[in-house]
Amino acid sequence: MTSPDTGTGLLAPGWAGSPAAAETGDGAFLRALLDAEAALTRAQATAGLVPAEAAAVVTEVAAEPGRFDPASLAERARGGGNPVIPLVADLTRAVGEEHGPFVHRGATSQDIMDTAMMLVAHRALGPLLDDLDRCQRALAVLAAEHRDTVLPGRTLTQHAVPTTFGLKAAGWRSLVLDARDRATAVRASLPAQLGGAAGTLAAFTAYGATDATALPAIYARELGLCPPALPWHTLRTPVADLAGALAFTTGALGKLAADVLTASRTEIAELSEGSGGGSSAMPHKANPVRSTLIAAAARRAPQLAATLYGSLVAEDERPAGAWHAEWEPLRDLLRLAGGAARDAAELSEGLRVHPDVMREHLGLTHGLIVSERLSAELAPVLGRSRAKELLTRLARRAYGEGHDLGELLAEQVESGELPELKNTGTSEIAALTDPTRYTGSAGPLTDRALERS
Amino acid sequence: MTSPDTGTGLLAPGWAGSPAAAETGDGAFLRALLDAEAALTRAQATAGLVPAEAAAVVTEVAAEPGRFDPASLAERARGGGNPVIPLVADLTRAVGEEHGPFVHRGATSQDIMDTAMMLVAHRALGPLLDDLDRCQRALAVLAAEHRDTVLPGRTLTQHAVPTTFGLKAAGWRSLVLDARDRATAVRASLPAQLGGAAGTLAAFTAYGATDATALPAIYARELGLCPPALPWHTLRTPVADLAGALAFTTGALGKLAADVLTASRTEIAELSEGSGGGSSAMPHKANPVRSTLIAAAARRAPQLAATLYGSLVAEDERPAGAWHAEWEPLRDLLRLAGGAARDAAELSEGLRVHPDVMREHLGLTHGLIVSERLSAELAPVLGRSRAKELLTRLARRAYGEGHDLGELLAEQVESGELPELKNTGTSEIAALTDPTRYTGSAGPLTDRALERS
Amino acid sequence: MTSPDTGTGLLAPGWAGSPAAAETGDGAFLRALLDAEAALTRAQATAGLVPAEAAAVVTEVAAEPGRFDPASLAERARGGGNPVIPLVADLTRAVGEEHGPFVHRGATSQDIMDTAMMLVAHRALGPLLDDLDRCQRALAVLAAEHRDTVLPGRTLTQHAVPTTFGLKAAGWRSLVLDARDRATAVRASLPAQLGGAAGTLAAFTAYGATDATALPAIYARELGLCPPALPWHTLRTPVADLAGALAFTTGALGKLAADVLTASRTEIAELSEGSGGGSSAMPHKANPVRSTLIAAAARRAPQLAATLYGSLVAEDERPAGAWHAEWEPLRDLLRLAGGAARDAAELSEGLRVHPDVMREHLGLTHGLIVSERLSAELAPVLGRSRAKELLTRLARRAYGEGHDLGELLAEQVESGELPELKNTGTSEIAALTDPTRYTGSAGPLTDRALERS
Amino acid sequence: MTSPDTGTGLLAPGWAGSPAAAETGDGAFLRALLDAEAALTRAQATAGLVPAEAAAVVTEVAAEPGRFDPASLAERARGGGNPVIPLVADLTRAVGEEHGPFVHRGATSQDIMDTAMMLVAHRALGPLLDDLDRCQRALAVLAAEHRDTVLPGRTLTQHAVPTTFGLKAAGWRSLVLDARDRATAVRASLPAQLGGAAGTLAAFTAYGATDATALPAIYARELGLCPPALPWHTLRTPVADLAGALAFTTGALGKLAADVLTASRTEIAELSEGSGGGSSAMPHKANPVRSTLIAAAARRAPQLAATLYGSLVAEDERPAGAWHAEWEPLRDLLRLAGGAARDAAELSEGLRVHPDVMREHLGLTHGLIVSERLSAELAPVLGRSRAKELLTRLARRAYGEGHDLGELLAEQVESGELPELKNTGTSEIAALTDPTRYTGSAGPLTDRALERS
Repeated sequence: MTSPDTGTGLLAPGWAGSPAAAETGDGAFLRALLDAEAALTRAQATAGLVPAEAAAVVTEVAAEPGRFDPASLAERARGGGNPVIPLVADLTRAVGEEHGPFVHRGATSQDIMDTAMMLVAHRALGPLLDDLDRCQRALAVLAAEHRDTVLPGRTLTQHAVPTTFGLKAAGWRSLVLDARDRATAVRASLPAQLGGAAGTLAAFTAYGATDATALPAIYARELGLCPPALPWHTLRTPVADLAGALAFTTGALGKLAADVLTASRTEIAELSEGSGGGSSAMPHKANPVRSTLIAAAARRAPQLAATLYGSLVAEDERPAGAWHAEWEPLRDLLRLAGGAARDAAELSEGLRVHPDVMREHLGLTHGLIVSERLSAELAPVLGRSRAKELLTRLARRAYGEGHDLGELLAEQVESGELPELKNTGTSEIAALTDPTRYTGSAGPLTDRALERS
Repeated sequence: MTSPDTGTGLLAPGWAGSPAAAETGDGAFLRALLDAEAALTRAQATAGLVPAEAAAVVTEVAAEPGRFDPASLAERARGGGNPVIPLVADLTRAVGEEHGPFVHRGATSQDIMDTAMMLVAHRALGPLLDDLDRCQRALAVLAAEHRDTVLPGRTLTQHAVPTTFGLKAAGWRSLVLDARDRATAVRASLPAQLGGAAGTLAAFTAYGATDATALPAIYARELGLCPPALPWHTLRTPVADLAGALAFTTGALGKLAADVLTASRTEIAELSEGSGGGSSAMPHKANPVRSTLIAAAARRAPQLAATLYGSLVAEDERPAGAWHAEWEPLRDLLRLAGGAARDAAELSEGLRVHPDVMREHLGLTHGLIVSERLSAELAPVLGRSRAKELLTRLARRAYGEGHDLGELLAEQVESGELPELKNTGTSEIAALTDPTRYTGSAGPLTDRALERS
Repeated sequence: MTSPDTGTGLLAPGWAGSPAAAETGDGAFLRALLDAEAALTRAQATAGLVPAEAAAVVTEVAAEPGRFDPASLAERARGGGNPVIPLVADLTRAVGEEHGPFVHRGATSQDIMDTAMMLVAHRALGPLLDDLDRCQRALAVLAAEHRDTVLPGRTLTQHAVPTTFGLKAAGWRSLVLDARDRATAVRASLPAQLGGAAGTLAAFTAYGATDATALPAIYARELGLCPPALPWHTLRTPVADLAGALAFTTGALGKLAADVLTASRTEIAELSEGSGGGSSAMPHKANPVRSTLIAAAARRAPQLAATLYGSLVAEDERPAGAWHAEWEPLRDLLRLAGGAARDAAELSEGLRVHPDVMREHLGLTHGLIVSERLSAELAPVLGRSRAKELLTRLARRAYGEGHDLGELLAEQVESGELPELKNTGTSEIAALTDPTRYTGSAGPLTDRALERS
Repeated sequence: MTSPDTGTGLLAPGWAGSPAAAETGDGAFLRALLDAEAALTRAQATAGLVPAEAAAVVTEVAAEPGRFDPASLAERARGGGNPVIPLVADLTRAVGEEHGPFVHRGATSQDIMDTAMMLVAHRALGPLLDDLDRCQRALAVLAAEHRDTVLPGRTLTQHAVPTTFGLKAAGWRSLVLDARDRATAVRASLPAQLGGAAGTLAAFTAYGATDATALPAIYARELGLCPPALPWHTLRTPVADLAGALAFTTGALGKLAADVLTASRTEIAELSEGSGGGSSAMPHKANPVRSTLIAAAARRAPQLAATLYGSLVAEDERPAGAWHAEWEPLRDLLRLAGGAARDAAELSEGLRVHPDVMREHLGLTHGLIVSERLSAELAPVLGRSRAKELLTRLARRAYGEGHDLGELLAEQVESGELPELKNTGTSEIAALTDPTRYTGSAGPLTDRALERS
């Protein structure tokens, strides 16, 4: 799926071969730049500023990116600082002397470059949203299936109280839905850019437009983008919004990955990736590779977003540097988020859950995992301080001697040391100290979370 | 306005003394933590889990933050890693033995800490929004007043074509409105936090709740926050959304500051801050201090937001580090954005505009600032290549000899060298080359932008 | 140890109460600013530019920071954008009319502010280095004691091959030593700042200096700082170098913390912090709080350093924003690194190692942890492909049936299926598959690492 | 100079076509990976662990990167999370059955990947250092030529006191030399990586090494890299040091670019780039493109370095994500710094200085630029308060009426209002208020700075 123009992705197993890679390579940008130029000429034709034939010819030529050499454009971009300048030269030549004057007429490089950026973002976000949807559907299935699968809840790395895998999966899904909502909203708002040299649309009037302010909307319509409220050469809300949505998406998937990585540890083994990466020398190793690559993306995305937020500080009518600093980080973010979404879809669809291991772990603290419940239940009966004293003592024995807290409590009751509990039978105590019966509202919370669509 | 508990702000002229400082100091956090504890007991009283009297007493005691010593809390926070643990101990003691058991019952430290964070954010965003509103109104006035004040549009630091100060101010305002919209939306969505030890609400059931899932909404209502969809101990959407909105706000104001800094330069002097910072040794210096402090905030905010986006990757049910890493950066962002909003309000309200200087600058390129227009106008008349050749020649002379491009063109016409233009009078040429008549759609775009409220 | 001027540290258990807190509070900065002013007057007295008595009086007054009100300075700092301007006013008044003229004479605010920053950094790095030293000594002891304590080496979260805890601890220590070396080097190079209004030292000549270029070195000597090669108002090498060293230090300690957090997990439990943070409701929880707080610091430091690296881009002779953006992040970094160093010292001194648990974990993969060794040993005997086929088969059985790989191999040998190994006795096979005998060069590498001092 | 494997650089005029591009493309990484594999086999041959012929054949095959398909490697890298795994498979096949077993023997993927990273860094830093050297030499010439070229010193965007362009250029150069020193030091310390599966070198012993700890140094020697003190799979000092040096370099050049951008503004025009980027529609525009591209790089580098500093937190013996997150950012930093160095070399070699414009600007404040000097000179004569009062009054007139401060002062003296100055002649006053005579130690500081080599 990679092509020469994207780079090979050799350093990027996280996004190599993904739809995001295909939509963000240099070739994809070249196509988007050409689409923007063609739409510009067509929009002016629609407005009666340019011959319809010119628009047709420009569109036809622009539809063949193979006529243009990205590497040559890249090198010549050094002259003026962006690739649109040489591309306009090449496109003008390619459409011939008659139509050449109607190429890029009235526009500035940034009109085309920004519009192409938005087109690329629009195209890359499509499959990203598809992958988020695959992911959330798979997580919904997991959450429903494991609504009542109990495992230890962990806080600051330690067992705290029980929870369910259903609630965990529902939580992951809620983040994925949050990401989907943010990415969907930002995708729906991506604007075309058209302002001319300094954002006044002046050249279009010079070329004959009676109302140049109508032109950007016509242009946007040609491209399936939103009409801009104002030229936004240095009003970078669309880029900042993209940065936020993509950093959010990558981070949200990073939470899923972090949990899977922990749960995949050899000692924990509550989860395993469907098809772990193998190692030839160590056949037992089933590396959680999907999670690893998502985790790597999540370590990078926030800083890339920071660069884009920083580019809000763009001086003058068009800036010297802030704009140029956006191109690669925005592409990187699209790739990282898109690649992470693909990996998250595969991960969640293939995830293997080991409920028996989860259940086994509930016993690791010898019943202390339900000590919170015992505190709550015994305090009214024994009084708060006696209850606390009792539990502290039993907990110490449970932890030190490896006995089960419930059994120790039953012993105490049987030995008559806790007369208040004399009518509490062994089975009641067992129920009280059964971690699988102390999951609180995990079930209803899961149900509620799954209602969100 | 500062108080001992906020730090003095000695290193932070950007936010010292601001409403954001008052709402984000250690004292403000202490208040918010106490508010959260009191609301928690009240919510349980409402749900019938706790005596009404206990709720009343806890509320009464919690209303007096002066009873608690933040420095002592801070030091004891080292034991468990957060200040809620010692605060609960102190509050429990302060309400007396009878009501003590109803303090913090069923909750985890993070329930209180997260809720307090959201309260602080809610409170700090109020004045921030007020200041953004002051700022946008001042900018609206400037934009309307200077709808037709012409100045050079600059791109990559160089004069490009004319624009208007009205359009510049309208652009700044549109960013401020974008910031307002994002900050308003995020403020309206700040949720309370309630999940108990591992987010299952289990303890509340153990303490007698029949439907613990109803409790978070009751709790949120007590605090004027949103009910959480799920416990979000490790589903950090609210924090990430705050990060995005605050980084956006600070960056948007940073654009305004960058432009004012440039326009304030001694050589440019098109704008000056109402009351520049003086220098004792150099009485002529009127430093653009408001802009400087906003610019400083804008250099910092993106990286603070990056840390918060990074904390989306929070493992388990409550994380060991990701959560703790949020507290200071979130406060810093609230301060930086809040301080920048105050400075931007003052800046925009006091900004002095020098239209005569702007107009003078239009002449600095000897008319080349309208060369784009001449290209557009002459091409149809002279043919594209002759027009270009003519303009290149005249531009070279204008630039080299310091002559005005319009005059040079008039000379050519008068000398008969351009027969096609022989009916174009001097005054027509003057009009054609008058920079103040080449502002394109700057006026209508300004009007349109000002319609947004 | 906190004092009102530092803020209370309520949100910062990671640095509250630490030496770094004491050396970086607003009060500490006030002291440093006053020290810088006093040294400036003394340096000019040494150079014969100022009466000795003035220097004595300024020094005396500056030695009493209690005479100055940081909160008032902070608010007045808003006027000119930095606290030195109001401080000079107050100090001038405090020394009286006679000596007032010799306060701050010839200097610019940034001379004092930058110098104070360097003083604060110098003072805060002292205890940081002490704590790094405590830490590395404790780790050296652990590494030596556990030179031959075997545990599973983990890669991508999975058991790979055995390693030793000695080598792990030696690795942590090597990072601490790297941090120490970087912090020591940067501390030894911190320069005083003296340049006057635009870095030309011109005012000093106007006030009578015959060679103003000699003054900065005299000034630096008074303060125990390095003489600057040039005024560095916008040549920010010292700040960037601090940023690098502090981000490195915090990150290096973050590696230690990450490993302790993992090893502290309930399921792993190979390590535990000396005194874990407790939870009242859950008495079994011994939270790894020191590691948690270090981990939190390590999540923040890189982005703070990024802001400081960004401030290298400081325009003109003194910048409008880049400089102001440095103050809080540099303080934050000193606090985070200093607090993390304290926590790392406590953590490493108190760390409890559980070799029996480590050893037990070696068996979790049923001997597959030595499959790499078997591949290497059997290939020459059986031929590469037969060896591989055999191991794959045995590994599958070991993993699937829960049998030990060594026993399965011994069975094969005994049954005569591997005639090439018929002379290999059971004890030899046991030795070959004993994870504690497959630690490679872990011991010698540990020894070598411990030679570094 | 670009080739298909690097991506075309279409979005990156800052580094497209640079030596850094050539040394950091996917093809360059493939070469480095192959070099690392070949060196590994040779090192084992040297140690007697592998037949010399195998080493020769592996070396020969590895010398032909064209035999390997980076795009295929990239896609297959998804399986195990890194490209070394498929590369080893392909290389093993390519050397034939006899020598195959000696490919990659005993190593882990990270040994090869890390070593390749260091090789690439070593190769990319060579031309970077050459370009820094070109840059510093050009700046030295400028500093020497313009040792006494006076221009306004600017602080917070306002004229402060005069300085010289020589001192500015010497300051830029000092930053370039600082960058050179840091890049040189880090380049000289880049280590090879060799540790085996979990950093114990165990497999090498299993394959027959008597002292496996000797192997890494032999391996390093083959590659011209430093021997590692320990395997550094999760001790990431080398990567962090690279991050620091590259962020520093880019930021240092960013300061130069920021100053050139300011000085190139149409209103300032004290400097211009040798060959500005043109605009077809606006022939007068000579955009400072080199500075723009450097400025763009400087906005990105700190955040990329932050990601690398963040990867110090790498758990276990080899981490799941922290390592994978380094690859692209490290490459990006090498490209940005390398591209910026090239642009800075071109920029400084071609920079055009306009001393007449600088001199003209000295007059913009009507002499107020020397008010600091007048304060210093008049205070002893008139007394401090009278001097101040006089200057404030004259400054107001100078500023308000556009008169020259020196002339106003001369008038006062002539009118007899300042009897203390009656013997001060007009020419003396002219000298006193001549900005070109108030450059303080700018000359000697420049001389001193130029002594550094």
